[in-house]
Amino acid sequence: MQNNKTITQVEVPEVVVQRLPIYVRILSQLLESHIEIISSHQLGELLQITPAQIRKDLSYFGRFGKQGRGYNIQFLLDELRQILGIDRAWKACLIGLGRLGRAIINYPGFSPEGFEIVAAFDNNVAQYNSNLGTITVQSMDEIAHTVKEKNISIGIVAVPSNQAQSVIDTLVESGITGILNYAPIAPFAPKHIVMRNIDPVLSLQSMTFYMKENDEIN
Amino acid sequence: MQNNKTITQVEVPEVVVQRLPIYVRILSQLLESHIEIISSHQLGELLQITPAQIRKDLSYFGRFGKQGRGYNIQFLLDELRQILGIDRAWKACLIGLGRLGRAIINYPGFSPEGFEIVAAFDNNVAQYNSNLGTITVQSMDEIAHTVKEKNISIGIVAVPSNQAQSVIDTLVESGITGILNYAPIAPFAPKHIVMRNIDPVLSLQSMTFYMKENDEIN
Repeated sequence: MQNNKTITQVEVPEVVVQRLPIYVRILSQLLESHIEIISSHQLGELLQITPAQIRKDLSYFGRFGKQGRGYNIQFLLDELRQILGIDRAWKACLIGLGRLGRAIINYPGFSPEGFEIVAAFDNNVAQYNSNLGTITVQSMDEIAHTVKEKNISIGIVAVPSNQAQSVIDTLVESGITGILNYAPIAPFAPKHIVMRNIDPVLSLQSMTFYMKENDEIN
Repeated sequence: MQNNKTITQVEVPEVVVQRLPIYVRILSQLLESHIEIISSHQLGELLQITPAQIRKDLSYFGRFGKQGRGYNIQFLLDELRQILGIDRAWKACLIGLGRLGRAIINYPGFSPEGFEIVAAFDNNVAQYNSNLGTITVQSMDEIAHTVKEKNISIGIVAVPSNQAQSVIDTLVESGITGILNYAPIAPFAPKHIVMRNIDPVLSLQSMTFYMKENDEIN
């Protein structure tokens, strides 16, 4: 326990946790524009939620705004980054270097946010062992050893669907605690593993629920 | 209103709507394995939620299981597909044909699920006008005309961040009702637009909230 404001994950609705990184992104953009204070009304417009929802979201973590004076952006940003655990760097490894995997390893957005891909694995080492900058592609046999040696916390899974569950099992056995899965499966992992699926089809299928209603209203 | 079980989006928590496509995927896999009936206990294990949560999720939409007899998978699947609006086909267009856009248009997972990319736009028409099968890349000037002409509902945005908001504005003006945005921005759209962001950094940042807690417990 690092401070007296410790929050347990049970208390905070998952939808709030999913929204906090968007707060961070918007507050960072404001700060870059040299804006220092923002009202919950203004922040609500940017986030497209009500000021009441913002106050409720933040109330899980303490009091951030002074009545009638708005939020100090730098302070709120620092606190949210600490709450989310993104005030530190996280080591990740990538498994699978097909078309998707290569797009991921070349994606410039991870590193500035503190997520560093420090290892990459594929069964076809020879094919992919070039053009990856400082990273040397390793055989999948080496996942467990490397994850422990480099103290890697996050596994990014970009293998074909039929290999994904087996790769996830290996990552779990290796001591990984977070998995970002791109394979379009419904993967299984023990409860202590934090898993997110990046799956555009699932996203589209949860959109049409609302679009269908729009259709019916029109 | 198509039937007497009409559900309004307000009544159903968004987290439930996001979970329903995962039900659909798992139930489809079971059906392919010739399994016809499943208990909420078994389904809970596959979904990694409690049987009570499953009953609560489904209770928003009526009664699906008979006490002590489990769920008829085909029936539940058909109902969920209708509820989600994925018992019909949806037309989509893709904007941006850089590395990400080309990976999206070549992704084989959309079409079998009823999401058909029927048009593609990029400012650099000449560069990308090959290797796209039946789709001819059009200039971005043609978005509005083509969206109306082809009756497209969904826009998939894969342009660089600095172009994304302007593309989203164009899509909204064209009459699109759903946007799947891959650009790492916090985009704005009017309330009647259903938007999902595919953003691995946001996913990672909502994972570390829970991973940090694991760390502290250990």
